[in-house]
Amino acid sequence: MAKSIAGPEIERLIQLLAKLPGLGPRSARRAALHLVKRREQLLRPLGAAMAEAAEEVKVCSHCGNIDTRDPCTICTDAGRDRSTVIVVEDVSDLWALERAKALNASYHVLGGVLSPLEGIGPEDLTIRRLVERVAEGGISEIIIAVNATVEGQTTAHYIIDQLDGFDLKITRLAHGVPVGGELDYLDEGTLSAAMRSRTKI
Amino acid sequence: MAKSIAGPEIERLIQLLAKLPGLGPRSARRAALHLVKRREQLLRPLGAAMAEAAEEVKVCSHCGNIDTRDPCTICTDAGRDRSTVIVVEDVSDLWALERAKALNASYHVLGGVLSPLEGIGPEDLTIRRLVERVAEGGISEIIIAVNATVEGQTTAHYIIDQLDGFDLKITRLAHGVPVGGELDYLDEGTLSAAMRSRTKI
Ligand SMILES: [Zn+2]
Ligand SMILES: [Zn+2]
Repeated sequence: MAKSIAGPEIERLIQLLAKLPGLGPRSARRAALHLVKRREQLLRPLGAAMAEAAEEVKVCSHCGNIDTRDPCTICTDAGRDRSTVIVVEDVSDLWALERAKALNASYHVLGGVLSPLEGIGPEDLTIRRLVERVAEGGISEIIIAVNATVEGQTTAHYIIDQLDGFDLKITRLAHGVPVGGELDYLDEGTLSAAMRSRTKI
Repeated sequence: MAKSIAGPEIERLIQLLAKLPGLGPRSARRAALHLVKRREQLLRPLGAAMAEAAEEVKVCSHCGNIDTRDPCTICTDAGRDRSTVIVVEDVSDLWALERAKALNASYHVLGGVLSPLEGIGPEDLTIRRLVERVAEGGISEIIIAVNATVEGQTTAHYIIDQLDGFDLKITRLAHGVPVGGELDYLDEGTLSAAMRSRTKI
């Protein structure tokens, strides 16, 4: 954009919006304009919602989910099956599985996958906390629902090793998840089917 | 999304983000997660930028541009040619022409086009203010840069009628703008070329 079309406040808004996934520089300008034209209906409420979320967002100390309470909404949901824990890489995968209503289970969010190339080791993930949860008792099945990537599978094997010796059924999502595919992009039917026909490792 | 994945603050953030152009429900969730994972780097600054923009945004009483000052940055720019006024439908068109560095002129933002079907008449646009600006003197050329749609062309003819009797050159963008096309989606080269070869009406 030329140096001085709009005031610095609007320029800053555009620059920050451009950092959102799915918005490039041009769509960020479009979004900014959409916002400033809807000051009371959208711009002000969205700014307030962001400020409030920034104040309230917490990482669940139990499962690694992101929520505005700790323990999170899922961990404190009395209707959840706590004997089954679905291990996912990221909160986005948890959300995807919840959207698919795949299983009324609990979760454990790893916060990523092992990646020697990127210097991500076990201590950078929540694997130790997962082992603690299993050691605390009450968990009978661990469903490892990591992405079907090389790093995901390496991480799965590492977790299985760490859980060796516990009296557990360890399963993974059924094949049906495309090789190399990411959970978060799959349609809900595929996710549900993969969950239903999960197989013992 | 299922009823209770995350707290109401995050749900509200997702719902508001989904109202941005270019973000559907799924990409809004993705954006929300991206934000809450980057609380200090992005969520809090963006919330603050929105609050500040909401406080500061104004419609320029001179030209109809949106800015954080009134008169706007362009209207107060001493380096602008004020004898030439480019008439556009929307601020997004003004931004597009500025990005194309099409002409160092002034602007007049109509705020839409005449549309009997949608009940938009002359009094809903800034046409009267445009005539006032011309009557105040100092303007020698009006470039009507409305979209090449039926409503755009109807609006152009209405404006030309209103400016009848003033000693003005009235031009339009050269053909080169695709018929039915919207300025805001055009590449900058096309916009510049169309501006350079603008023709007298
Ligand atoms: Zn939790
Ligand atoms: Zn102005």
